[in-house]
Parts: sequence; structure tokens; C-alpha cells
Amino acid sequence: MDDGRFAAKRVIGDVVSAEADVFADGHDLISAVLSVRHQNDKKPREIRMRPLVNDRWRAEFPVESLGFYYFTVEAWIDHFVTWHRDLKKRVDAGVSGSDLDVQLQIGLAIIRGAAGRAGARDRRKLETFIAMLESGDAQSDKVEEMWSEDLLALMWRNSDRSLATKLAAEYAIEVDRRKAAYSTWYELFPRSAASKAGAHGTFADVEAQLPRIAKMGFDVLYMPPIHPIGGTYRKGKNNRVIAEKEDVGSPWAIGGTEGGHTAIHPQLGTMADFERLVKKAAETGIEIALDIAFQASPDHPYVKQHPEWFQTRPDGTIQYAENPPKKYQDIYPFNFETVEWKALWNELRDVVRFWTSRGVKIFRVDNPHTKPLPFWQWAITELKKENPELIFLAEAFTRPKIMYRLAKAGYSQSYTYFAWRNAGPEIAEYFNEITKPPVSDFFRPNVWPNTPDILTEYLQFGGRPAFTIRLVLAATLSANYGLYGPVFERHLSAPREAGSEEYLDSEKYEVKQWQKNDDDLSELIALVNKIRRENVALQQNATLKFHPTDNENIICYSKTSADGVNVILTIVNVDPQNTQTGWIELDLVALSLDARGGFQVHDLLSGARHNWNGSRNYVQLNPHVVPAHIFRIRRRVRTERDFEYFL
Amino acid sequence: MDDGRFAAKRVIGDVVSAEADVFADGHDLISAVLSVRHQNDKKPREIRMRPLVNDRWRAEFPVESLGFYYFTVEAWIDHFVTWHRDLKKRVDAGVSGSDLDVQLQIGLAIIRGAAGRAGARDRRKLETFIAMLESGDAQSDKVEEMWSEDLLALMWRNSDRSLATKLAAEYAIEVDRRKAAYSTWYELFPRSAASKAGAHGTFADVEAQLPRIAKMGFDVLYMPPIHPIGGTYRKGKNNRVIAEKEDVGSPWAIGGTEGGHTAIHPQLGTMADFERLVKKAAETGIEIALDIAFQASPDHPYVKQHPEWFQTRPDGTIQYAENPPKKYQDIYPFNFETVEWKALWNELRDVVRFWTSRGVKIFRVDNPHTKPLPFWQWAITELKKENPELIFLAEAFTRPKIMYRLAKAGYSQSYTYFAWRNAGPEIAEYFNEITKPPVSDFFRPNVWPNTPDILTEYLQFGGRPAFTIRLVLAATLSANYGLYGPVFERHLSAPREAGSEEYLDSEKYEVKQWQKNDDDLSELIALVNKIRRENVALQQNATLKFHPTDNENIICYSKTSADGVNVILTIVNVDPQNTQTGWIELDLVALSLDARGGFQVHDLLSGARHNWNGSRNYVQLNPHVVPAHIFRIRRRVRTERDFEYFL
Repeated sequence: MDDGRFAAKRVIGDVVSAEADVFADGHDLISAVLSVRHQNDKKPREIRMRPLVNDRWRAEFPVESLGFYYFTVEAWIDHFVTWHRDLKKRVDAGVSGSDLDVQLQIGLAIIRGAAGRAGARDRRKLETFIAMLESGDAQSDKVEEMWSEDLLALMWRNSDRSLATKLAAEYAIEVDRRKAAYSTWYELFPRSAASKAGAHGTFADVEAQLPRIAKMGFDVLYMPPIHPIGGTYRKGKNNRVIAEKEDVGSPWAIGGTEGGHTAIHPQLGTMADFERLVKKAAETGIEIALDIAFQASPDHPYVKQHPEWFQTRPDGTIQYAENPPKKYQDIYPFNFETVEWKALWNELRDVVRFWTSRGVKIFRVDNPHTKPLPFWQWAITELKKENPELIFLAEAFTRPKIMYRLAKAGYSQSYTYFAWRNAGPEIAEYFNEITKPPVSDFFRPNVWPNTPDILTEYLQFGGRPAFTIRLVLAATLSANYGLYGPVFERHLSAPREAGSEEYLDSEKYEVKQWQKNDDDLSELIALVNKIRRENVALQQNATLKFHPTDNENIICYSKTSADGVNVILTIVNVDPQNTQTGWIELDLVALSLDARGGFQVHDLLSGARHNWNGSRNYVQLNPHVVPAHIFRIRRRVRTERDFEYFL
Repeated sequence: MDDGRFAAKRVIGDVVSAEADVFADGHDLISAVLSVRHQNDKKPREIRMRPLVNDRWRAEFPVESLGFYYFTVEAWIDHFVTWHRDLKKRVDAGVSGSDLDVQLQIGLAIIRGAAGRAGARDRRKLETFIAMLESGDAQSDKVEEMWSEDLLALMWRNSDRSLATKLAAEYAIEVDRRKAAYSTWYELFPRSAASKAGAHGTFADVEAQLPRIAKMGFDVLYMPPIHPIGGTYRKGKNNRVIAEKEDVGSPWAIGGTEGGHTAIHPQLGTMADFERLVKKAAETGIEIALDIAFQASPDHPYVKQHPEWFQTRPDGTIQYAENPPKKYQDIYPFNFETVEWKALWNELRDVVRFWTSRGVKIFRVDNPHTKPLPFWQWAITELKKENPELIFLAEAFTRPKIMYRLAKAGYSQSYTYFAWRNAGPEIAEYFNEITKPPVSDFFRPNVWPNTPDILTEYLQFGGRPAFTIRLVLAATLSANYGLYGPVFERHLSAPREAGSEEYLDSEKYEVKQWQKNDDDLSELIALVNKIRRENVALQQNATLKFHPTDNENIICYSKTSADGVNVILTIVNVDPQNTQTGWIELDLVALSLDARGGFQVHDLLSGARHNWNGSRNYVQLNPHVVPAHIFRIRRRVRTERDFEYFL
């Protein structure tokens, strides 16, 4: 990453393949090693690099511990292997007599040099070869000894590296747990978790929903801020500037008389209730993710205790958030460049620490692009040093270079532009960018069809099929995806006003109760998540491959597991209104299929199986029935008794 | 280049365009400068960068002095321009009263800060603004003053850069004279320059040829080594291992009893003759280029005076060159890693200095890839520090990465794979690689259809048309090109043996006399070089653009001058045997042509003019007549009286 300035990202169990251009003047042979160490290793481990073609060399190593690995490359002109290669050529060409004697003398000098560098054990072994070359043995016997594998290994271990070249930089790889690369998120507002009409939800209500959420196949439950909510300039329903008395405010207006970022909104429950929720969720295979929104309401305790952490205006008041001429007087941004920045930065890092000590290991960070990049780089590094299991999701919807730079600063996952990529070609273009190097080395997409802030035009006008389409795309294009759950399940699509991406009567400003809905998408969601769980191909992005189609409304792409066995081919009609038909042109090599043999496509959504032959196939998809195929490719297997089945 | 590790190359008069991604967290405005200095400048000069799109910024500067320029980028969040932008928004939105007063107070504080940083002159001017803001003037008057261009300029000059970010590296650009980018080379062996049969040519004979070479349009005359030639293990005719008594040997077996790399072969003339040749050549617009071949014959004075500069074998003999089991006993390579390397390196650098002091500024370096890269980097840097007019051409025919690395080490020009790129698509692919960044930033191709070592199969079997085709391609594809002249003019094509790229009876081992030949290519060469001289589009490579054709045997490409006025469109039939026809599809935008209007193509080879319309045009090229068009595009110009002509 950027010549060693940032770490590349991998997860436990990945195999890192490191390549380097290694060459020198002249025709001598080169040796090269990849020198690798984990942050806890005392000494680096060396892996011999092997030449590919065109002066490109490679070595591979698996990453098996969390935290940072560092690697660099060292290479040198290897006089022994050069001499050894040339000796072989001379012998093969029939060189003998004094000409060959001189060569053996040259080899002897090189071996003596190695013996001088070697430890006692290797030295004794090398001395045997030296004695033999110095002896009166026949020339042919001496030459014969030179082909010994032992000698090659000894000389490799004690090679003359005094003029070796080492890369100037050490390159870093940060290794996360697997969940950083494969996770399925469900977002809900805990205050809307009660089933009783008019009631304010509690952590206990959320606990009651865990089995349902687990059954749908989610493994991360993310809750917007759970802290006390400010009263000053509180926002009313639909983000009105003046709130009514009963309005509950936005959870992102953090801080009230009851406390700030380390306190819990009293109506949600106690700290004990929260810790119980974390524990119960873990028992159902779900991790609780919290929201980190580093801003304060005017009622936040920080405002009185640490006014120096905010910007003060010439009239003595504290600077509220604004986008001139619009004012957001319910929010005070922190002044990260305050003279007291060290105290502020430490305090904010300790907010995360506080929740980590309560069992939370996943954080979704609100608007990280409006806080300094150096702060995130420092804070995430500090926190992950203590706990390398932490996962940070950056909620930055901003310019691409800033989103990428946040990922380089240490974010484990990132929100994307997925919600606004609806046409076939733009989906392919965007996913080719974010799932291939260099971007995929540092940026892990987490794609969301909707969020409490994003109700796209596509969902507003596409009806239920639009939701189905976006669900299938999110779940099969990206190994990390999430849903703003209760609203998505019910495919709610009414905007606050025409042209707005805000929801009408948004939960951000109200308490809701979500009643059971027979037309909801929960069964489809459960099925799609089950397909993800059962097919490792969908648990990574590296092998994502788009296949051409002759209809822009139909996109077709595959993912293949690292071992090539599990292959999922997804075909989606992205038009939520009309049935679309078309021909797809499969890249059979990418699918590990034989161009001559037939194969079976097994639709994991419908259960149907079709036998296909060759690369060109026809599809027809009605969005009002099912707008997609998620095919598992089953290869024809012939047994000894000529009985065929599909694997 | 490689994050500042190597210098990019430009020539005098070029405009350097530097771009950077510049962004920060938050929504504040940014200012950025490109800081540029020439090696002789005491202080860098700052050029304000301007944003393009997507956080990419750019600044440009012309390079007007030889040697190294260095630049870096500095950027900062600019609180004044942010405040200024927001003030405008507020005023436009009708903000007034105390809300606007607070804003003017904030602005006042920023201006006070600038006054504190400013020198006396700017401070006095800023204090006028401060006094005005502090006065009892009407709010609207104060606001009005804020739009002053003077204030913006003052605040720009005294911006708060205490938290500015500067690129870690300084980037270098090496500026050469224009000949490094545009040159036309003629190679001859001076010993074959005599016209009298059987005579050994002299510098005086070369002098006599200068008018003819100048008339053909060449501006560099390159001679293989002019030094005494070794006698020990001298090679005979056609590289035979045993020489006859009368054999003259290869000029690359440098050094005899008469001297080494700073001596002149007695039969060529004296040092005074040589200096006279350099002077006479300059008078005809030709520079003499010498060959630098850092190797010694066994008879070289170095061998006796400095045996420590060579590798000694265990039997006490000096190691000759070899490619086991092949021996080249007429050549001793230097041991660049000898313990006495400092003395050796200094001596070799001083060889170049010696010839530079005799007026030579261009050197063609033999096999630089078999000597250490660090040696070249050091020697070229040292030598060009003394004389930035020096030009070094690397004769490295080796793997691409080593060729590129030599260019990065400082070579001004490089031999290429051009001689072996004969099919249309491979020509386009190769030239797209070497004439576009990143390669074109450090690698300046000098393309040769033939050399004394390279008689390609294409020339062996293609007859006279093959020579014509390769001449036109070399001269129009690359601003630097050269011919191994006497042999190319006579389109000699007999190989030493089938499958060999060596010439039969090669001049490398014999003295020749070249007689006038009526069927030679000298007139065509002169015409092609005249076209190069008269069309600046052909004197650079940056705008090279290939246009599609429907016949792989016909390639079509254009070059356009920086100002867009001079446009040359070359169309070549690369099949030397058969007439080829086809449709070409011109990219009219690249040619600065209006899609609606007609235009004229004026063939500078034949003199014919054709009126073309639109992008699709038909061509037919018979290699036995002329295998190419070199069209100058002439645009239709309408005068006031509606009289048309073509510019």
C-alpha cells in the first residue's frame, strides 16, 4: 500500500502472495528471500522466493495470527549457484583437465568463504566438502560430489549476502478475524423494539427479537446510539426544527443530564441489561455492534466540563454544526485541533475502550470523514493494539479518495456507493473497482441497500421487486452486507417528500413498533443468508467475475471458492418493472468448467435444476415472481460404472 | 519516478504538468502549492495549484535550464478562504445583524493572524482592513470590503501554514538539451571510410563524407571504438576464432601496445585529426558520438598497470569473458567489485571526461547491462554535473526491466526492441508502451532498423521494400532514430549463415570501401529526414496515436505538435511482399479535425494531395513502389471572400 505507508488487509487463514521484480546487471544468478515477521516475533522468518517470468519473483505465506505482519525482500547475486550452473554446463560440454581444475579451485574458494560464515554445525559439514576438493581424489569424483543436495542446502544457508540489496521499506499486512471479511448485518433502533403499541423499546425487547434475527441468518446486530439524548434544540418528527414536548429526539444528538458517550439512555435499560443483551446475542451467534458518533448535544456533560474541547465563537458561545447558511444547533462538533487535543483524543479513544470492556467488538462509526484522518489512524491503531479483534465500519458517504483514505487509516470495513449503483454496467464497473487490487487490498466493502438515511429513488419507485433485487445483489456481490432491517423487511418506501432520500416519519426522530407483516421479506432474507452460509464462494470477493450478457438489464456474475470447488453463478434482472430475457456468455474457464462437457445449474432460490451445455445460455426473469437465479454450478462426475451425477 | 527515487526526463522548453490528489477530512477549503526549484536556485518558487475534478489538483511550469529541477507539493486547510466562501453564502441568504457581526469578528481574528505573520509591507495593508473591521463603519460597508481582490491576495500570501502537509519526497526532473529528445543518427566504421580500394580509412576520409551525411539529414555521426585494437586472441573475418595475419580485428577489443581507451588507433589518424573532425562536423550541423565499451583486450595497458582491476583465476591468469562453455579470450571484463573499485570507477569516468574535453558530448555505451547499475548511476551523475549537455545512449538489448532500470539510472536515450517488432499490432502495442507514461517519463527510445550486430530476418527476406518500410517506421514513430548507414543505404541483407542476425563478411572484422551505388536509398533517407526537420510533430513522441485499420498489414498513426497546428498522419503497409488495401478509421478529435468539414492529406513522400471527408478512408499501398504515405493534414480555411485553401 502506497510504498509501505499503509498496511494491506487480510484475514486469518488467508495466504499472502508477495511478488517483486528482482534483477541485476550481468548474467549471474540471483537468490532472493521474503523476510516475514509477525509483530510478536523476535526474529523474521525467511522464505525463499522463486522466479516466475520476466524478472518477477514470488513467495507465499499464510497469516495465522491477528495483528500486523511485516515483510520485506532481500536479494543478492549468488556466486555459488552461478558457479554451480556453469560447472554443469562445462561438464556437459566435455570440459576436463586443467580447465576444469581451475573451476573446481574457484568453487573451493567459494565454499571456504561459506564455511567461514557458517555456524559450527554447518561448518563441520562444509569442511568435509573442502577436504574432499583439496584431496588427491579423481577429478570426476570431486565433480560428482558437487551435485549433492546437501551441499546446495549448506551453501544456500551460508550464502554471501554482504552485498545483498534489501528493499528500503518494510510492508505491513494487518490480519483481522474472518468476520472483518464476511459478515451479515441487521440494523434496528432499540427504542422501536417493543411490541406493545406506544411503548418505548428496551434492551430486553431487543433480546426477545434475537431468535428471529438469528433465524434470518444475521450475525451482527447494529444499534444506533444508545446514549442519553439532548433536549436543547431537539429535532421534532421528520427533522422539524421545533420539537413537540413528547418528541424523543435523534439518538445522534448524544448527551443529556444523564450522561454522555459512556451512559445509556435510561428508557433503554441499565448497563447490566446491556451487558446481558451482549451475552444473549453471542449465544445465538450474533455480535452487538454499537454506533460511535463523536459529537455532542448542547446538554452533553463535556460541554460544561470541557468547553475547551469545542470551538468558541467571538461572542462566547460554542460553535454549533452548520453548512452555511443552514444551522444544526442541536449538535456541537468537537474541535479536534484544540490546544487540549491530547486530552480530547485520549477521552474519545477511551469511549471505545469503555464499550470494549463491556464486550462490544464491532463499531459502526458515524461520519468519520468529518473528523481528522490522523485521529482515526492513531485511535484505531491504539485500540487494535489492545484488542486486535475489533472491527470498525466507516460510515463515510463522501468523495472516493477520502473513503479510500479512511480505509487506509485503519477502518476494517467501509460503506460504499452500492445503494446508488442500479444499472447493470455501473454495478459491474463499481464492483470491479472495489473487489480487485489495489482497492481490495485496503478497502473492504460493506454494502447496504438501505439505511435510516438512505431510501433511494430505486426503492421508492420499484416496489417489492426492487427490494428483492437489491437484497440478492447485496448478498451475492459483497461478502459483507447489511440491512436497515425492520424497514427493509416490510419494503417501506415512502419518502419524507418528493426528491428526498429520507423516510417519511423516520425512526430517527420517533419511537415505532413494528408489527408482524405477512407480506414481508423475512423468509427470502433467511433463504439468501442460508445460501451465503452454505457456500464459501459467497464469503469472499476476490474471485468475483462478471460475465457478458446481451441485455443491460440482466447482469451475471460468479464467485468461486479458493479451492475451485464451490461455484456460485448469480443472474439478476435489475429492472424491477418488466420481465427481461437475454443470452449470457459464460467464461467457462473462470467457472472451472470444461468447454466440452455439460453441467448443471442448481437454483438455490427456487430449487430448480437445469442442464446447460457450453458458454451461451438463455434466461428469462420476471421481477414480480423471482428476479434472480442464484445458481450453484454442479459439475458432471462419471463414476467407474459410468453412472453420472452432479457434484 | 518510483516515488521520487529517480528523476523524470524532460528537455529544455517542455512544460511540466504536475498533478496531485489533495484532500482533507471535513468540508473546509484547501489551498495547495507546487514548490519548484532548479538545482541552482537558492529558494524554491511556489506555483498555486488548481483543483481539477475528484480531488485531483494541477500546476504547470516550463523548464528553461539544463540540469535538475525538484518539486514537491504543500497543502493546507485554508481557514480564510473557507470563511470567505461561507460569508458569501450567508450574505446571499440574507443573514445580517448579530449573526453576521459574529462572522465578521471571526474573519477579523483570521486577518489579525495573517498580519502577525506578514512582512512590513503586507502588514501595513492588512492593518487597513483590520482598522476598518474594528471601526464603527456600517456592517454592509465592512462586508463590501471583504470582496476586495487585494485582501484575497494578501491573505493568500500570508496564509496560516502551521499545519500544512508537505509530501515526504521531493521529485526530480532532469532537463536535457533538445537533442536528447530529437536526433537522427548515422553509424559508420571510420576504417571503412576510404574510397580507394584496399585503403584503411582515416578521420580525414570521414571528414570528406560529412557533406553527404549532412545532406541526408543526419545530425549525429556515431563511430564504433576508435582505439588501438588488441592482437592477442584477435578475431578473424566473420568472427573466426583464429585470425589471419592481415586481419584487422574488432574495434571492441580495445587496447594494444599503442594505448587504451584514451588513445587513437594509429591508422585512423592523430588526436589533432580527431579534433579537427569534431570541429568540421559541427560546422555541418553534425555531432560526433563515440562508443564507450568498458572492457579490455589482453594487450590493453591496464592489464599490466592495474591487474587488480580484473578478476584473477586460481591459476594466476586473468579471467576472460565467457558464456560457459563458450570462451571469449580476446576480451577481459573489468571487475567492478574489486577491492580497488574506487580507483577503477574513477578511471572509467575519466575516460569519458577525456573525450568530453576533446569536444565529444554524445556517447553510445556498449552493453551497459553487463556493468553494475550503481556504477552508471554514479558516473553519469558525476559527468552530467560537470556538463549537463552530455547525452548517453544505452546499447542494452536485454530483459525489459533491466533496460528500463538503466534509463532510470541516467541514460538519456535507449536502444529498443523496434528491430524485432514487425507486425502491425505488435508495433502499436510496443510504441504505446514506450511513448506513454510511466515509461516515457524516464525512457527515451532511439530506434534502429539495423546495427552492425542486427540484421533481422525481416530485412534478410524483405528485399528493398523491407528497408523502405523500416526506414519510414523508425523515422516517423520515434523522434530519435538511427541507421547503420553504409549498409542500410545499400540495403545489404546477406547473413553470415542461415538463422543468424550477423552480417556476412561483417565490417566488425574487416576494412571495407563503400562504392557509390545507384540503387541506394540515400535520396529517400534524405527526403524522410527533411520531412522530420520540417514537421515539429515528428520531433516528439508524446502525441503518438494509433488509428484503427481493417487490415493488420496496414498501420496508421498520427503525431500532433503541442500547439495542434502541425499534424502528420503516417500510413504504412508492413508487408514487404504484397500490395495491401484497407479502410482506416481516423480519430478526428486526435487530429484536431472537424467531423463535418473536409480536409486535405498532403503526401510529403509523393507530393500528391487528396481531399478526404470524415473519418473513414480507403488506402492502397504497393511496397514495390512506395509502401507508405506520410501525410501532412491540411485544414480547410475559408477566407472572407469565400475563397478556400488548405493550411
